[in-house]
Amino acid sequence: MTAAGHPGLFITFEGGDGAGKTTQASLLEEWLTDAGHAVVRTREPGGTEVGTLIRDIVLHHRGEVAPRAEALLYAADRAHHIETVVRPALERGDVVIQDRYLDSSIAYQGAGRILGRDEVRDLSLWATAGLLPDLTVLLDLDPTVARQRLDADDKPFDRLEAERETFHVRVREEFLALAAAEPGRFLVLDATLAPAELAATVRERVAGVLG
Amino acid sequence: MTAAGHPGLFITFEGGDGAGKTTQASLLEEWLTDAGHAVVRTREPGGTEVGTLIRDIVLHHRGEVAPRAEALLYAADRAHHIETVVRPALERGDVVIQDRYLDSSIAYQGAGRILGRDEVRDLSLWATAGLLPDLTVLLDLDPTVARQRLDADDKPFDRLEAERETFHVRVREEFLALAAAEPGRFLVLDATLAPAELAATVRERVAGVLG
Repeated sequence: MTAAGHPGLFITFEGGDGAGKTTQASLLEEWLTDAGHAVVRTREPGGTEVGTLIRDIVLHHRGEVAPRAEALLYAADRAHHIETVVRPALERGDVVIQDRYLDSSIAYQGAGRILGRDEVRDLSLWATAGLLPDLTVLLDLDPTVARQRLDADDKPFDRLEAERETFHVRVREEFLALAAAEPGRFLVLDATLAPAELAATVRERVAGVLG
Repeated sequence: MTAAGHPGLFITFEGGDGAGKTTQASLLEEWLTDAGHAVVRTREPGGTEVGTLIRDIVLHHRGEVAPRAEALLYAADRAHHIETVVRPALERGDVVIQDRYLDSSIAYQGAGRILGRDEVRDLSLWATAGLLPDLTVLLDLDPTVARQRLDADDKPFDRLEAERETFHVRVREEFLALAAAEPGRFLVLDATLAPAELAATVRERVAGVLG
């Protein structure tokens, strides 16, 4: 049992789009599963059926969603997802690997400079009754490099991805500031390193947490 | 201009289902319109297109929505509705007549005894950047009488209406406690009185606020 009061382990991957979160989460999942751990792989937003409906509103509604409404919708997705998926898994003793969590909310909202960081953090913590990850892996990447990766993949942009470059520079700064404020929870990695090398570092840290 | 800092007037109608909110809101709207006021008639949840999508999730999703998620979804609807419909109207100097607002959230959540009243109130006030009504008309009715009215109308029940009777008794108590705590904002009426008599009392109070 970790300090968080449940027998499981809650690991989140954070960073901008194109930083390699999905690749690293998959490699970690594979390693943990091979080692005999029960792993639940999930993501935000959209990890539940209710969450998918909420996500559709935020990302694809043609009109503008008011900023506070958007923050509340993400918080609602989070509340439902944590209550119905993550907490039950952690209480069973599983390892939960999640793509994006409250640090993404704080970084993206903080970078947008419409809502305050502390407000967004308080909202997320209320939504989840205070659940923080045991470990957060931040894949840090220059947004220009991330942009080139996404262009190479030829993926369609969603609304957030289409925001201007300076926004992504601020998101990166916000992520790094969050990591600096909680060094015990964060593992910050240079996302330009080879995937295998990054995966080895993540495994080493997770092995340490698993004891 | 009222004490609320906008040139408009924000009036909400509260009370359980079957108490006559729609009838009274319509009568007040008619009287104000005849007197030459610009009136915006709205309701929560569901006052906007985004709100309708949110409402569909809360009321009609087959699975269970986690309690905090439900509170956050209602708050998101409110945030969007207030920002895009109510505030612009109040800033134009219109009278906004709204069916249900934060007192409903507090009363229903408080009666459910899952989330705290203060938490729900804080959430609503964050969602709306602190907007309180200038006047709230509470149509107070014994839930047994309300039930008979709704049965007579032969309306289909939604999920909230189908909750057990004791819940509605607690909702009524919560509404009355809210009114007692803010006597300056609330006008509490006995909803068993004749609609014309209730409408006259509402008009008298509104005339006083309009100065």
